[in-house]
Amino acid sequence: MTRTRTETDSLGTIEIPADRYWGPQTERARALFRIGEARLDPGVIRATGLQKWAAAEANRRLGELPDAIAEPIKAAAEEIAAGRRDADFPLPVWQTGSGTQTNMNANEVIANLANERLGQPLGTRAPIHPNDHVNRGQSSNDSFPTVMHIAAVAALRARLLPGLAALHAALTAKAQDYASIVKLGRTHMMDAVPVTLGGAFATWARQVENGVARIADAIPRLLLLPQGGTAAGTGLNRHPDFDDAFCAILAARTGEAFAPNPDKSEGMAAHDAFVELHGAMNTVAVSLNKIANDIRLLGSGPRGGIGELVVPADGLSSSIMPGKTNPTQAEALTMVCARVMGNQTTVTVAGAQGHLELNVFKPVIIQCVLESAGLLGDAAVSFATHMVAKLEPNRARIADQVAKSLMLVTALNPRIGYDRAVAIAKLALAEDLTLKDAAIRLGHVTAEEFDRWVRPEEMIRPGATLAGG
Amino acid sequence: MTRTRTETDSLGTIEIPADRYWGPQTERARALFRIGEARLDPGVIRATGLQKWAAAEANRRLGELPDAIAEPIKAAAEEIAAGRRDADFPLPVWQTGSGTQTNMNANEVIANLANERLGQPLGTRAPIHPNDHVNRGQSSNDSFPTVMHIAAVAALRARLLPGLAALHAALTAKAQDYASIVKLGRTHMMDAVPVTLGGAFATWARQVENGVARIADAIPRLLLLPQGGTAAGTGLNRHPDFDDAFCAILAARTGEAFAPNPDKSEGMAAHDAFVELHGAMNTVAVSLNKIANDIRLLGSGPRGGIGELVVPADGLSSSIMPGKTNPTQAEALTMVCARVMGNQTTVTVAGAQGHLELNVFKPVIIQCVLESAGLLGDAAVSFATHMVAKLEPNRARIADQVAKSLMLVTALNPRIGYDRAVAIAKLALAEDLTLKDAAIRLGHVTAEEFDRWVRPEEMIRPGATLAGG
Amino acid sequence: MTRTRTETDSLGTIEIPADRYWGPQTERARALFRIGEARLDPGVIRATGLQKWAAAEANRRLGELPDAIAEPIKAAAEEIAAGRRDADFPLPVWQTGSGTQTNMNANEVIANLANERLGQPLGTRAPIHPNDHVNRGQSSNDSFPTVMHIAAVAALRARLLPGLAALHAALTAKAQDYASIVKLGRTHMMDAVPVTLGGAFATWARQVENGVARIADAIPRLLLLPQGGTAAGTGLNRHPDFDDAFCAILAARTGEAFAPNPDKSEGMAAHDAFVELHGAMNTVAVSLNKIANDIRLLGSGPRGGIGELVVPADGLSSSIMPGKTNPTQAEALTMVCARVMGNQTTVTVAGAQGHLELNVFKPVIIQCVLESAGLLGDAAVSFATHMVAKLEPNRARIADQVAKSLMLVTALNPRIGYDRAVAIAKLALAEDLTLKDAAIRLGHVTAEEFDRWVRPEEMIRPGATLAGG
Amino acid sequence: MTRTRTETDSLGTIEIPADRYWGPQTERARALFRIGEARLDPGVIRATGLQKWAAAEANRRLGELPDAIAEPIKAAAEEIAAGRRDADFPLPVWQTGSGTQTNMNANEVIANLANERLGQPLGTRAPIHPNDHVNRGQSSNDSFPTVMHIAAVAALRARLLPGLAALHAALTAKAQDYASIVKLGRTHMMDAVPVTLGGAFATWARQVENGVARIADAIPRLLLLPQGGTAAGTGLNRHPDFDDAFCAILAARTGEAFAPNPDKSEGMAAHDAFVELHGAMNTVAVSLNKIANDIRLLGSGPRGGIGELVVPADGLSSSIMPGKTNPTQAEALTMVCARVMGNQTTVTVAGAQGHLELNVFKPVIIQCVLESAGLLGDAAVSFATHMVAKLEPNRARIADQVAKSLMLVTALNPRIGYDRAVAIAKLALAEDLTLKDAAIRLGHVTAEEFDRWVRPEEMIRPGATLAGG
Repeated sequence: MTRTRTETDSLGTIEIPADRYWGPQTERARALFRIGEARLDPGVIRATGLQKWAAAEANRRLGELPDAIAEPIKAAAEEIAAGRRDADFPLPVWQTGSGTQTNMNANEVIANLANERLGQPLGTRAPIHPNDHVNRGQSSNDSFPTVMHIAAVAALRARLLPGLAALHAALTAKAQDYASIVKLGRTHMMDAVPVTLGGAFATWARQVENGVARIADAIPRLLLLPQGGTAAGTGLNRHPDFDDAFCAILAARTGEAFAPNPDKSEGMAAHDAFVELHGAMNTVAVSLNKIANDIRLLGSGPRGGIGELVVPADGLSSSIMPGKTNPTQAEALTMVCARVMGNQTTVTVAGAQGHLELNVFKPVIIQCVLESAGLLGDAAVSFATHMVAKLEPNRARIADQVAKSLMLVTALNPRIGYDRAVAIAKLALAEDLTLKDAAIRLGHVTAEEFDRWVRPEEMIRPGATLAGG
Repeated sequence: MTRTRTETDSLGTIEIPADRYWGPQTERARALFRIGEARLDPGVIRATGLQKWAAAEANRRLGELPDAIAEPIKAAAEEIAAGRRDADFPLPVWQTGSGTQTNMNANEVIANLANERLGQPLGTRAPIHPNDHVNRGQSSNDSFPTVMHIAAVAALRARLLPGLAALHAALTAKAQDYASIVKLGRTHMMDAVPVTLGGAFATWARQVENGVARIADAIPRLLLLPQGGTAAGTGLNRHPDFDDAFCAILAARTGEAFAPNPDKSEGMAAHDAFVELHGAMNTVAVSLNKIANDIRLLGSGPRGGIGELVVPADGLSSSIMPGKTNPTQAEALTMVCARVMGNQTTVTVAGAQGHLELNVFKPVIIQCVLESAGLLGDAAVSFATHMVAKLEPNRARIADQVAKSLMLVTALNPRIGYDRAVAIAKLALAEDLTLKDAAIRLGHVTAEEFDRWVRPEEMIRPGATLAGG
Repeated sequence: MTRTRTETDSLGTIEIPADRYWGPQTERARALFRIGEARLDPGVIRATGLQKWAAAEANRRLGELPDAIAEPIKAAAEEIAAGRRDADFPLPVWQTGSGTQTNMNANEVIANLANERLGQPLGTRAPIHPNDHVNRGQSSNDSFPTVMHIAAVAALRARLLPGLAALHAALTAKAQDYASIVKLGRTHMMDAVPVTLGGAFATWARQVENGVARIADAIPRLLLLPQGGTAAGTGLNRHPDFDDAFCAILAARTGEAFAPNPDKSEGMAAHDAFVELHGAMNTVAVSLNKIANDIRLLGSGPRGGIGELVVPADGLSSSIMPGKTNPTQAEALTMVCARVMGNQTTVTVAGAQGHLELNVFKPVIIQCVLESAGLLGDAAVSFATHMVAKLEPNRARIADQVAKSLMLVTALNPRIGYDRAVAIAKLALAEDLTLKDAAIRLGHVTAEEFDRWVRPEEMIRPGATLAGG
Repeated sequence: MTRTRTETDSLGTIEIPADRYWGPQTERARALFRIGEARLDPGVIRATGLQKWAAAEANRRLGELPDAIAEPIKAAAEEIAAGRRDADFPLPVWQTGSGTQTNMNANEVIANLANERLGQPLGTRAPIHPNDHVNRGQSSNDSFPTVMHIAAVAALRARLLPGLAALHAALTAKAQDYASIVKLGRTHMMDAVPVTLGGAFATWARQVENGVARIADAIPRLLLLPQGGTAAGTGLNRHPDFDDAFCAILAARTGEAFAPNPDKSEGMAAHDAFVELHGAMNTVAVSLNKIANDIRLLGSGPRGGIGELVVPADGLSSSIMPGKTNPTQAEALTMVCARVMGNQTTVTVAGAQGHLELNVFKPVIIQCVLESAGLLGDAAVSFATHMVAKLEPNRARIADQVAKSLMLVTALNPRIGYDRAVAIAKLALAEDLTLKDAAIRLGHVTAEEFDRWVRPEEMIRPGATLAGG
C-alpha cells in the first residue's frame, strides 16, 4: 500500500501519496477522471513550467511578489520546464475543459517544491500558497491557453519544421540526381507523355516547401498570448503591466516574439489560432500522403507493378512470403496522415463549441495539435531517412516504359492535328503496334518525320515540339 | 549501457537488448519507426496472445504441429494474452500498415519464451522457429486483422457496453425520480411549452439504449475472422480445416461466436467492419455530446443561467474564482466525443484506401477503434457516477420558470385559434404582463376560462387541452 | 415586374407574387434567407405532401377535422406528394433549423390550393386555415422530422439500394466469368502470391453485399416516427390516437412499417437515426472507394502500369493526348465517395449539437442524407454499367506477370522452410534470375521438385502446397 | 421530341440537341455521368470563359493563332465569362476527375459559337477546331485547375470577403454601442466575474477580423497558376512564353496578381492551395459557429433562459406555439458552418489522393471550395443584417444578473486570500444569501469594506481590485 499524507481543502480531507508533490485539487481530479490511459502530452507540462516561471518573474519585477516568494517559485518551475517533474503530473487529457486541473496541478507541485526548499513539509501551502502566490495575477482561463501557445510553438520548432526540412532536403537531392532521367508520365494513373524523374521529386519537394510556408503563416497568431486575461478576459486581480512583462520575459528566454493578445478573450473564449494551425498541418498531411502514395506507386512491383523506383530493402519482410520488400515507410507515413486528418476534425469540432467567455475543449485541442506536429515531424524524418534517401531508379525499366508509350503521339499534334493523332494511337493500341509503325501505316507521317518529331527527351519542356521548335 | 545479444537474419547481424524476448524483426522495426511516443494499444498485444494460442492449438489438433512444439507455444502465448509481456512489445502504431512487425514481434517473443522453457538461450530460433512454427499456417495478413477483430470485440464487452449500461441505469433512475416535475421546455433554446424533467432524462436514456443496439448491430460482422486467408486471402500453406478449427477453439475459449469470414480477402483487403463499428460509436458520441450539452445548459447558473439542475460540487474549482462549481464531467465527456468524431474521420480515410489484396492502415484503424471504445466507455461511467447520479433539481427555480412562461398560451390554440393566441403572447411580452392578464385584456378569454384551459400540468400529454379533453 | 397580392400576418402586410401559392411565412423566409443557391431537396418537399396527406386523413378519422376540411387538404397534399408543386417551395436549406419555414410553406400552399378549390382567392386563410387545419395536431417540431424519415426511407428504396443491387450484380457476373483466371496477387502494392481475378471481383461483390446489409440494419430505427410529439415532444393539442392513426395510414399507403417512436422527443431533440444511417452510408462509400481504386490500379497502363484489366474506351479522352482512355467512372465514383465522407462530418457535427427539446440542424441533416443516398446510388449504377460490365482482362499480361513473380517461392515454405525460401527470392531478385534458376543454384530443390511444388494454379486454395497436399 | 444534329468523333456518330452549342465529348459525358442533380457551380463555367479568352489572346500575341481565329474565340469566350452560356454547360460535378469534360465542353461551345459567327453551322469543327485552336497550347490538365484558381479567387472577392466585412462592421458597431454595459461573464457556462457586453461583441469582431487575415494569407498561393503545364506538367506543345503571357493578360483584366506557378506540376498533380484555403475557411466557420452559439445563448429565454440579448422578431414563428421568436439566423448560420466543416473533410480526402502527375478530384474540390466561400459569405451578410444589427440588450435583466452574482467575490482575493473567499461564496450559495451578507457573517470583511472592494464596474479591467488599485 502506498503511504499517504492527509490534506484539507474546501471539500474536506483527502489522502495523497506521500511522495508525490501534487495537492488536493490534483488528487481529486485523479479520482474523478479515470478516462483512458493517456496523460496530457509532456510538451504541455513543460510549457506549464515555463509559464509559471515567467509569471513569477513578472510578478517579482512588478512588485506583486517579493523575491523571497518569487525565487523559490521560479526554481521549482524550472524543474518542470526541464522535464524533471513529468511524473508529478498524473492527469489525463479528459479533465475539465479549461485545463484547470493541470494549472492547479502545477500550482500545487510548485508550491510544494518551493515550500520544501524553504524547509516545510509537503502540503503546507505556506509560506507559498498555490493560488495566492504561484497563480498570482493568473487564472487557469488565461494560463492554460498561454501554455497551449507556448507548447505548440515549441513543437513546431523542435519537431515539425525540422522534420519537414529534412524531408525537403532528401527530396531535393534526389531531384537533382535524377534531373536527366526521362520517364513515362502518368495522368489518371494511365500512361501519359514523358516527364523526368527528377521533376517528380522536385514537385514533391515544392509541396513540402509550401508546407513550411503554410506553417510559418500560422505562427504570428500563435505568438499572441492571452496571459493577463485572468478571469473571463478582464484582467481582474492582476497588475496592469503583467501581460507586457510576462511576454517580454518569455520572449527573451525563448527567442520567440511572444506578445499580448490585444483581445485576450479571443485567446480564451476561442482557439481559432489552433484551428488555423491545424488546418495548415492538415494541408501538410495531404501533401505527404500524396508523396508517399506516389512513391509507393512508382515502387510497386518489383516485376508486376510500375517498378520505376526500387524501394529500399529495410530488413523487414512478410511473415509468410520470403524475401518480400514492402514500402513500410510509406505505410507508416500515410497512417500518420490519416491520424492528422482525424485530428483536424477533432480540433474543428472542439474549436467550434466555445461557450461565451470560455472554450472548454482546451486539453483535447492542444493534445491533437501536439500529436499532429510531433507525428508529422517524426514521420517526415523517418520517411526521408529510411525511404527517400535510399530510393534508386530502375533505369532499364524506366527506359523501356518510355519507349513503348503510346502517348508519345502527342508530339505530333502540332504537326498533323489532334484528330489524326488519335487515329494513330488507336491503331497502335488495337493491333499492338509501335506508334511509329501505326503512324506510317496510316500515312500521316514518314519514318523520317516520326523520328525527327517524336523525341521523348524533347517532350519534357515547352516549345520543342512546335513547328518552329 | 544496455547489454545485448547478437542475432542474425537475412539482412545481417543485429544487436538486441539481452533481457528482451523480441528478435531481429522487432529490433529492426524499433530503429526504423521512431515516430511518436505511443505504443500500440495493449488490447492489441493481448489479443495477439489469444490468436497465437488458438492458432497453435488448431495446428496441433490438425497434426500440423506436434504437441512438443505446440504446447510450449501455447504456454508462451498465454503469458502475452494475460498481459504479462506487454513490455516485450515495444513497437508504435506507426509501423508497417499490415501490422507485420507486431505479428513478427509476437512470433519472436513466443519462440524465445518457448525455446527458453525448452532450455535454449534467447535467439536460438530452434527447436521452435518464429515463422515455421509460431506463424504456422498463418500470415501477418490474416493474423493481424484477426487480432484486430478479437481486440475490438473484447473492448466492446469490457469497456464500451458496460459503460453505456451504467449511464443508461443512472439516467433511467433519474427519469423515474423526476417523472412528475413539470418544467419549462425549450425549443430553439427559447422558452416553449412545459415538459417533465423526468421526460428529459428518459429521452437521454433512450438515446443510450439505442446506442447499445447500434453497437450490437455491428458485432455480427466483427465476429467473422479472416484467419486462414494467409497470403493474399488464398489460404496458401495452411491446413484446409485450419480456419474452422481456429474459430471453434477461439469461440470456445472466449464465449464469442467467432466464425470464418466466408470471403477472407474481404477481411484483409478491406476493413469495412471496423468502419461500420466506428460509425456506430460515432453515433454514440453524437448522443452523449447532446446529453452532456443539455445537462450543462440546464445546470448553467447557478443564478445567471437556466439553473434547473444543480451540478454536483465535486471539489474541483476555479484557480481564481473562489467557490465556483463547474460541469467538469460534461467537459471531459464532450472532449471525448470530439476525439471520437475525429477518429471517425481517421478510420474512414484509412479504411477507404485499401490497395488490392491488402489494406495497409491496419494499426491506425485498430488503435482508433480501441481508443474510441475505451474512452466512450470510461467517460460514460465517469459521467454516470460523478455527474448524473449526483444531479439535483432546483425545484423552486423550475416552478418559477414554468409559471412565467409565455408559451403556456399554446393551450389556447384549440379554443380560440392560433391567430388570437399570437396576439396574447405578443402583448404579454411587449408590456411585461402575465399571460392571463394579456388574455383577459384582449377579451379572448375570461379569467375563469384561462384558469381552466391553461394548466401546465395538463400540457405534458396528448389530448388534455382539446375541447373535449 | 411581378404582380403581387398583399397578405397580412402578425408582423404586418407583405407582398407575395400573385401566382404563387405560398403565404406570408414563406415570403418572409425568402427575404430573410438569401444564402446559397440550392433549394431543399425535392425529396423533402414530396415527403411533406405525404405527411400532410396522412395527417389530414388521421384527423378526419379521429373526428378532429370534418370531411369538408380534410378532403380538400388531402387533395392539395397529393399534388405536392406527386411532385407537381415543387416550384411553390422556394426555400433554401439554410433557414430555421427546425424546418419550420418549410412546414409553414406546406401549410400555406395546401391552404391556398384547398381554398381555391372551394372558390376562394389565394391568401384567404379560410375556410381552411394553414395552422388550425392543415397543421392540425401537429408542430413543425414533429412534422418536419417525420418528413425527414419518410424522405430518407424513400431515397434508400428508390436510389441507394437499387444502385447497390446493380453494382453487386455486375461484380458477381464478372466474379463468375473470371473465376479460373489465375493472376498475380499484390499486398503492400507489391507482388505477392497468385490469386484469381474472379476472386477479386467476388470480394468487391461481398463488400457491396455487406453494404446492403448495413443499410438494412439502419432502417428499423428510421421507421420510428416522431409525429405526435407536437410541441417539445409532449403531444400537446393533438388527439391521443393521432400518432397511431397517422403511422397506420402512412404505412398502408407506402408499404413501409412506419410506427410511432415510443419516445417522440428522441426523434425531435436528436437525430441519431440519421447519424447512424449516414455512418452506414459512409461505410458504403469506403467500400466503393476501395473498389474503384482497385479497378483503377488493375487497369493502369495500358503499357506502363499493371494493365491486367482493360478499362473500357468510353469515347471520352484527353484534350491534348490523343487516343488516351481514362478510368473516368472510377474518378466520378471516388469523387462521390469523398463527398459522402464530408457529409459524414456534417451530419455528425449537426447531430451532436441538439439543444434541449429540439435539434435545430434538421434541414442540413436531411439534405446531406438525401444527397449521399442519391449520389451513391446513381454512381453505383453508373460504375456498374459503364465500367464493371465492360471491363475485360488482358490475359496475356496476366499470365506473364504470374509467371515471373518471385513470390511463388512461398509455396516452398512448407518444404524447405522460410529461411531458405528467403535466400532463393533474394538471389533471383538481385541477379534477375527466374525463381527456378535461383532455387536450383542454391541447391535447395531440384528442377523436378520445383516444377512439382511451385504451381501457381495450386497456390490459390488452402492445403495444396502442404507436404501431403 | 428534341430535334438533333448528328456529329462524328473517334468513337462514331452521336446525336446532339440541335439548338445546343456543345459537341460530341459533352454529349457523351452527359450520357455517361447521370449522377445526382447538381451541375458544376456556375462560377467554374464563367471562369472557364475567362481562361479561354486569355489563352486565345496569349496565343494571338505569340503568333500561335492568327487574329482571324483568335478573335472569334475570344468573342465566344466572353459570352461564357459573362454568364450568358450557362445553359450550354450541362455536366455535373461527378465526371472525369480532371474536369476534362468541362474543358472539352468549353472548347466545343466556343468552337461552335465562333464558327457560327463565321457562317458555319454547328458541329463543323472548322475553321475553328475545339482542340487545335480553342485548346491551343493547353491541356485539360492545366486549364481546368487554372479555372479552379480563377473561380476561387473570384468567389473570395465577390462573396466571402465582403460578407465577412459586413459582419465585422455590424459587430464592431455593437461593440461600441454597448461598451459601457457591465454584464455577468460566464465561464464553463457558469456565472463568472463581470465583463462588458461591448467586449463580447468586440471579441467576436476580432475573430472575424482574424478570419479575413487568414483568408488573405491563403491568396498568394492561389494566385500561382498551373497554366502552361499542358500534359503532365511538361509544357509540351505550347509556346515557351505562353504561361507568362497568359498570366499577364489575365492579371491585367482581373486586377489580380496572377503569375505562373514555378512548378506547374505542383498545381496539377496536387491541389494543396485549395486544401490550405479551405482550412482557412474552416477556421472562419469555427469562429462563426462560436459567435452564433454565443448570441443564441445570450438571447435564450425570453424569460426562462439567459435573456441578456433580445433576439429580433423577424416575423417567423412556430407553427404551434403562438408568438414565439426564435434565433433563426443563428440556426441558418450554424447549419452553414456544419456544411463547411464537412466540405473540409471532402477537400482533405480529395486533395490527399492525387496519383502521380494528376490529381483527379478536381471538380469536387472546386465545388466544395466555391460552396463554402459562397455560403459563408451569404450567411455572414444575412446574420449581420437580420440578427446582429437588430439585437438589443435587455438592460434590466443584465443589471439584475450582475448584482446577484456570487463570483463578485473574486474581487476579494487580493484582500483576504483565496481560501476565505471560497468560504464566503459557498455560504452565500448554500443559504441563498447575498455575497455581502455572507462575507459579513463570516467576519472576513466589514460592510464598508465590501462596498468599497466589490464594485462590478471596476472588475472589468486590470489592476483596479489590487490593494493599491
